[in-house]
Amino acid sequence: MELFLDGADRRSLATQLYDQLRAAIVEGRLPRGARLESTRAVAERLAIARSTVTDAYGRLTAEGYVQGRRGGGSFVLGDAVPRPRRGRAPAALTATPVAAAVRRYGVETPRARYDLTAGRVDGRLFPVADWRRCSNQALAELDGAFSSYGAPEGSPEIREALAQWIGRSRGVASTSDQIVVTHGATHAVDLVARVLLRPGDVAAVEEPGYPPVAELLRTLGVRVVGVPVDDHGLVVDALPPTARLVHVTPSHQFPLGVVMSRERRLALLRWAGRHAAAIVEDDYDSEFRYSPRPLEPLHLLDRDGRVAYVGSFSKILSPALRIGFVVAPTSLVPALRAVRQSIDASPSTLTTETLALFIEHGYLARHCRRARKVYGERHRLLSRALARLDPRVASRTTQVGLHLPLRLPDMPDDDHVVARAAESGLLLSSLRRTYQFTEPQPGLVVGFGAVATPDIPHAVAALERSVR
Amino acid sequence: MELFLDGADRRSLATQLYDQLRAAIVEGRLPRGARLESTRAVAERLAIARSTVTDAYGRLTAEGYVQGRRGGGSFVLGDAVPRPRRGRAPAALTATPVAAAVRRYGVETPRARYDLTAGRVDGRLFPVADWRRCSNQALAELDGAFSSYGAPEGSPEIREALAQWIGRSRGVASTSDQIVVTHGATHAVDLVARVLLRPGDVAAVEEPGYPPVAELLRTLGVRVVGVPVDDHGLVVDALPPTARLVHVTPSHQFPLGVVMSRERRLALLRWAGRHAAAIVEDDYDSEFRYSPRPLEPLHLLDRDGRVAYVGSFSKILSPALRIGFVVAPTSLVPALRAVRQSIDASPSTLTTETLALFIEHGYLARHCRRARKVYGERHRLLSRALARLDPRVASRTTQVGLHLPLRLPDMPDDDHVVARAAESGLLLSSLRRTYQFTEPQPGLVVGFGAVATPDIPHAVAALERSVR
Repeated sequence: MELFLDGADRRSLATQLYDQLRAAIVEGRLPRGARLESTRAVAERLAIARSTVTDAYGRLTAEGYVQGRRGGGSFVLGDAVPRPRRGRAPAALTATPVAAAVRRYGVETPRARYDLTAGRVDGRLFPVADWRRCSNQALAELDGAFSSYGAPEGSPEIREALAQWIGRSRGVASTSDQIVVTHGATHAVDLVARVLLRPGDVAAVEEPGYPPVAELLRTLGVRVVGVPVDDHGLVVDALPPTARLVHVTPSHQFPLGVVMSRERRLALLRWAGRHAAAIVEDDYDSEFRYSPRPLEPLHLLDRDGRVAYVGSFSKILSPALRIGFVVAPTSLVPALRAVRQSIDASPSTLTTETLALFIEHGYLARHCRRARKVYGERHRLLSRALARLDPRVASRTTQVGLHLPLRLPDMPDDDHVVARAAESGLLLSSLRRTYQFTEPQPGLVVGFGAVATPDIPHAVAALERSVR
Repeated sequence: MELFLDGADRRSLATQLYDQLRAAIVEGRLPRGARLESTRAVAERLAIARSTVTDAYGRLTAEGYVQGRRGGGSFVLGDAVPRPRRGRAPAALTATPVAAAVRRYGVETPRARYDLTAGRVDGRLFPVADWRRCSNQALAELDGAFSSYGAPEGSPEIREALAQWIGRSRGVASTSDQIVVTHGATHAVDLVARVLLRPGDVAAVEEPGYPPVAELLRTLGVRVVGVPVDDHGLVVDALPPTARLVHVTPSHQFPLGVVMSRERRLALLRWAGRHAAAIVEDDYDSEFRYSPRPLEPLHLLDRDGRVAYVGSFSKILSPALRIGFVVAPTSLVPALRAVRQSIDASPSTLTTETLALFIEHGYLARHCRRARKVYGERHRLLSRALARLDPRVASRTTQVGLHLPLRLPDMPDDDHVVARAAESGLLLSSLRRTYQFTEPQPGLVVGFGAVATPDIPHAVAALERSVR
């Protein structure tokens, strides 16, 4: 244990030692049964007389904090140890009203029999052996890279691998020098907003939408406006003219699942041009498509450099890895790199180099093919089963992603349904929680990433029981 | 390659295919020599007539973009491929003046014969085999965790391991529920500021100091004031009364290396109490101490819950890992967790579980002991050598960390010295760059993390030549 001695302190050295050891025992840093360092070792390390240490240990023993044992050594006694000190005066520091109002969204649901929450993937599909191979190769090759911070935008290797991957899998034309690697899609949105927006600026988000995006914008001092989504995607005509940034999920709207039509895409680009606004195209899950006719990304249609395209490996591989990226207009790249460096230096070199190898060796493409088959089957089964409850599931939902929205006008309070389902071993996500600006629609966002295929009929039966 | 077909598009299907393939070739997404998918495969995948695909391929061949080969297949011709399109209209989006003014600091210096830059560690000391063992164990055990986002504050396992580690190695009393795991110390500072400060609020930083901290505060709309540092640490009397947050490095001031005295620590805590301000104690490198008598952390002296203690594994292990943490007053923990979740969900589960195992198995303690010996020897050699150039190195620098400040009143322009040194294979960091508010002092921040011990005399000789 680290011990501190201060010659200027009016307390004697023995008292200083005694106070610190006693505090460590009371606070649980020296747990019951721990052996104190020998008096000789402490005296040598601190360059003080051994008798000073013996004095301090003697007092601790006399007061019952420690006990000497035959054969040597002093050990912390259990009886003297109250629970660890938790916190301090709890009200000394308080979060700003904006930060205190941020609500957690969609994390940390407990394990259950059936998991139909949104945002999950099937961890059993994660190619552990392939990843380990790449991780060990990266560890062996990184050597010099452990000495220093990496480039804030990610290494040339990972950016090159990403440019190739998103060019082929998503039709996004980019060069590696337009890419900044982030900790995920939302982290990329945050970085873009931080470079483009000033406190007091207006940003537009989809309503319903993914609540964390509005939350993070608010903690930047940005004013957030919700814009409705219909069957063709974001209603461009409803955009506030003051918006400096528009966040959209055109490939697969979260949570409603609609694909933004070509007309709307072009209208949105024209709108952004007219209002000198930026578009953040959040393509969080479009690798998983079960039909062959998607539309071009906004990024590909954009001729003016207004679109920042953000993506993530949370769905295609695992949310546990924390890798995302932004493909930015070149005019923004220097500021994105510098601001990112000031906040958190760089992505994890080890993780990104592992991913670069994982892509280069073809493991990602193989995993993607396999996972698409599994999820496609689940999508088919689930959409058929859910159509009994909500006919719009079949007619309006598109063949993409890992969740289906379920609108249930007669459903009672979402929170109540979610809680009741959890009691019966079924985890659900509320649709209501995705509305922040208008009257929420009752329903569920049904994720099929984590549920085993044979469990789907049972899970849906449990769902039906919960909503009735 | 992903191809997009839109029934509502007025172009024929063949033209849509042709346009997209041509664009992919011109933009380099389909590189020279790449083989196009067979017409049969494309037709099946897109559920269109094979003749439509043949038509599109025929046009590409006629125009010289691709060439059919005997034995089958169409291949991209090199001649038709200009360089990849870089960016778009470069001025469509521009960063805010604040973001555009952020300067990069201390990253990405090239390899050289001798590296005396600040912020480096010795990558050759990184315990690759131990880390690999833990990483593979974590991969084997994580299974279910690949399905979902982790807790935004980090798992109970990593927070428990961190609480134990910092209790023993740094004398910081905390329980795991006060800890939020971050991507590094600076990232922790950012998170705390985002939860505590509003745009327009005032924050105080050390002058000279670590420039990225002031930069990240500015991109949050915070007004940043520099406060001087003397031989006893931050000059508490010079703090602006309006400051809501004070960022300090009391264990080892960056860059000057002084340790904040006990009197100043207590004065700072009293000041913060009087002004209802927060203190961010940034303990970025205090694991490496070469003498036995440090002072208690502010966090341990704090009785009101005003101190957020931040630390990092960038120095003790490697900056390439991106793991840091904040030990926060309990009053702030819920907001820290929620805001962090909105920005980037959670730390990397794989990396944090690897570190938890690395700590539990005792590998971190062993690595720390070994590295401390190596760095202690370098510190001794370097401080002796540098004392010839600046007598204050010997008398005023403390026995901690991985860098020594070198003040050279007669030194010509820092940038010039750094550039000239780089030409001769020596990398240096400027002291001048660490001043942001007042007249900069000429000198260097000499890091000894990355230089091999036997190289120190040669590196110092090269340094002497550069500054003269």
